[in-house]
Amino acid sequence: MIPSLLQTLTTTFDGLNDSLFSDTKKKFNLFVGASVGPEVEDRWAALDILPVDILTKSEKKSPKASTLVVSNSPTNMYRNFSFPKDLTDGYYSLKKSPASHSHPHKPLDWAVVEATAITEEGWIVPDASIMIGATPEILQSADKIIIEVNTLVPNLEGLHDINQGFVPPHRQPYLITHPSDRIGLTSIPIDPDRVIAVTESKAPDNTGPNAPETPESRAIAAHLIQFLSEEVSLGRLPKNLLPLQSGIGNVANSIIGGLAEGPFEQVQVWTEVLQDTFIRFFETGKLEFATATSIRFSPEGFDHFFSNWEMYKDRLLLRSQQVANSPELIRRLGIIAMNTPLEVDIYGHANSTCALGSRMLNGLGGSADFLRNAKLSIMHTPSTRPTKNDPTGITCIVPFASHVDQTEHDLDIVVTEQGLADLRGLSPRERAPIIIEKCAHPDYKDLLNEYYDRSLHECLKRGAGHEPHMLRNAFKLYTNMLEHGTMKIKDWDP
Amino acid sequence: MIPSLLQTLTTTFDGLNDSLFSDTKKKFNLFVGASVGPEVEDRWAALDILPVDILTKSEKKSPKASTLVVSNSPTNMYRNFSFPKDLTDGYYSLKKSPASHSHPHKPLDWAVVEATAITEEGWIVPDASIMIGATPEILQSADKIIIEVNTLVPNLEGLHDINQGFVPPHRQPYLITHPSDRIGLTSIPIDPDRVIAVTESKAPDNTGPNAPETPESRAIAAHLIQFLSEEVSLGRLPKNLLPLQSGIGNVANSIIGGLAEGPFEQVQVWTEVLQDTFIRFFETGKLEFATATSIRFSPEGFDHFFSNWEMYKDRLLLRSQQVANSPELIRRLGIIAMNTPLEVDIYGHANSTCALGSRMLNGLGGSADFLRNAKLSIMHTPSTRPTKNDPTGITCIVPFASHVDQTEHDLDIVVTEQGLADLRGLSPRERAPIIIEKCAHPDYKDLLNEYYDRSLHECLKRGAGHEPHMLRNAFKLYTNMLEHGTMKIKDWDP
Repeated sequence: MIPSLLQTLTTTFDGLNDSLFSDTKKKFNLFVGASVGPEVEDRWAALDILPVDILTKSEKKSPKASTLVVSNSPTNMYRNFSFPKDLTDGYYSLKKSPASHSHPHKPLDWAVVEATAITEEGWIVPDASIMIGATPEILQSADKIIIEVNTLVPNLEGLHDINQGFVPPHRQPYLITHPSDRIGLTSIPIDPDRVIAVTESKAPDNTGPNAPETPESRAIAAHLIQFLSEEVSLGRLPKNLLPLQSGIGNVANSIIGGLAEGPFEQVQVWTEVLQDTFIRFFETGKLEFATATSIRFSPEGFDHFFSNWEMYKDRLLLRSQQVANSPELIRRLGIIAMNTPLEVDIYGHANSTCALGSRMLNGLGGSADFLRNAKLSIMHTPSTRPTKNDPTGITCIVPFASHVDQTEHDLDIVVTEQGLADLRGLSPRERAPIIIEKCAHPDYKDLLNEYYDRSLHECLKRGAGHEPHMLRNAFKLYTNMLEHGTMKIKDWDP
Repeated sequence: MIPSLLQTLTTTFDGLNDSLFSDTKKKFNLFVGASVGPEVEDRWAALDILPVDILTKSEKKSPKASTLVVSNSPTNMYRNFSFPKDLTDGYYSLKKSPASHSHPHKPLDWAVVEATAITEEGWIVPDASIMIGATPEILQSADKIIIEVNTLVPNLEGLHDINQGFVPPHRQPYLITHPSDRIGLTSIPIDPDRVIAVTESKAPDNTGPNAPETPESRAIAAHLIQFLSEEVSLGRLPKNLLPLQSGIGNVANSIIGGLAEGPFEQVQVWTEVLQDTFIRFFETGKLEFATATSIRFSPEGFDHFFSNWEMYKDRLLLRSQQVANSPELIRRLGIIAMNTPLEVDIYGHANSTCALGSRMLNGLGGSADFLRNAKLSIMHTPSTRPTKNDPTGITCIVPFASHVDQTEHDLDIVVTEQGLADLRGLSPRERAPIIIEKCAHPDYKDLLNEYYDRSLHECLKRGAGHEPHMLRNAFKLYTNMLEHGTMKIKDWDP
């Protein structure tokens, strides 16, 4: 099941698919620096391109053929690692023995990259919409480079901060102590000898609208903004907070929307992806500076952004994923990290990727690094989600997460539309009752309390009281869901 | 269940227990910077001191009253966080509102600290055996300080590198690019006005002998050293490797013992705890420099160390836990991290703390930060452990870890006495067959393969093939263990 790595191709592009993929007899190992648009994924599926290894998260859920479908299918696999680091560490090219090549080998055979300009030195000014993500490391790791210059968007020189990556023992500190600090260049240096083609594109990025807010997402945002206000008034956070990381989706949009109208001034943002709500945050004057690894505005958002490029130029910086998600900088800056998991368990383990333990719905992105290293690690989710036959058929507060991407050691705050649980400084047995009380939906509170009480009773009897569980029942909500389409069980033991 | 935090006490000491704890009517919230000796734990239990909050790992398993027993008992709780960071962030003193105090409050009321000397400025030269751990942050966070000067051991001035910790937004880079780099002082600065007592102690540290090697631990070490040698010969690691982190226990001792006789020269060590085998590593001349947060030699080891203090002084540095376990430095230096979990599942999730999901056996220590951020993240464990009625009654390679401390996103290498599984660059469905083939004990291989094959078949049918599981059976080995004293089940479904 391990495909040959002799032919590898990396892409962050949108316009070159037809020519490269029309020859369906070719097989590629395809590494994608970040998510791609549905028009790309759909074409891959239509052309039956196999095997495909998608490495980071997809935000779009194209019904036809998303990376998620690919990942859950029989023949393809999604890898979910620290892509840029693992790429330069050579972990995707272990089978390409360097000793067997006469010249120093590169992990990737070809790279395809989008640019908004090429400098006089031949260096690349990346696009804004397609993530910078792992582009610097991809270009550094590729034998041959194809550049697609998008002439529809303006030359974005000045928007990026591109630093040179090194591998140990030569890695150096990232000398950043404020989100606006620059440590690199405005373009990506490459060896022009490796460029085998330059093509032109006028295709806009197919982003679509941002996820709409709901009453639930607004309630979650209100709980969070109230909590942050209290922390400021108690002197535990500066008046302008600390740099914010915010995931994507409707809850994230409600939070940023709420902050745009909120009590905090001169706010800083250190995040992965900027969406439309950040425009409002900038426009109200409350957001002073933002840095991210990509911008994912709607088409109207991009129009506004390009029209006001002179204003945004000095208040925005795009960095490589390796810097944007760096544990070093997240810890040092004291980031307030806010992300949406699929579910959180009563002890604070979170599942960010796999529904019912197995079906991938989202990639990990930077959430593991943000949650582990942030000053305040916040997970926000609706308390329930609907199934076909039950509007609250899925509880997002569960006894034992069916997949663990972030552990109990990493979470400070869990918040749903029901309320906010502050877990800081608490042991597992202190956390469980608070998470259930504050965050669980009323339809599930009794079930969860009974699970906890019975687990506690059974575990204390055998001197195993640190994190009480009834393992025979730990996944019973899921097996009920698979059989009956709802997590509402009748009782814990028959 | 949340105890009042009005009376907090922090201790890294051994001799002051009687006077402090003889008044059994007093109740303390007790925070321990690291593990304490059995003589301390036993006395706590004998005096029925409650509640006790122990924050980091205990290495000793005193049968009478270890922190582990405490943690699993009805009335006490063990918290398992990033202690020094959470302490200075104020997460253990949320109930002590700073606004309600006329002078700036400190999170801790009293701190008790052991010293080998006090400088002319009144600053503290810490001990070597009791961890530095969180001592700088504890002293920074305490209202009143009690110093116990141990006059049995020599003045260890020069052994430590003590840097000032800041909280965001004032945190600064750790400017370390080599294990021997110094960024701080040789003693811990304190405000002498806060010292309320200085006492003398002549008690040696009650360390006991290190865990003896076994044929299994030697086999694991041999697999690992062979793997590292291959990585060097393929050019993926420098000839002197990269800085090593090694846990404690017999496997760790076999690895370090093997390296002492091994093919690598000028090796660097960046770890948490140094044990006796490191003395041999130094003596053979293969270990050039080591840095850690504590030294835990046997009594004979300490005798040798103190007699050869002049030699060791320039080849050893002790740092605070916050620096030694810093994600920033682990990532930058490209550490090779080697730790022992209780179990690893077929997809690479590891359980380092809780047996059967609930009973705490070990604290987390720095393993989450090392595993997440290392260049090579290695977990080593025997493939099985004995139960009362079955010499291979527990398999350490399981379908679904009963507790997750490190996730699939963090592990590169799993090794047992059976063999080594190289997981780098692999997706979950590529990992499972390899972990089972290389690492599982023959008594469990068929069971695990059947679990994986049946899970794969069931999950692909419903388009959920990313990480296949049969959730109804995921914990069946444990429920069998609880009922029958062995994980050897008859079949997966009756």
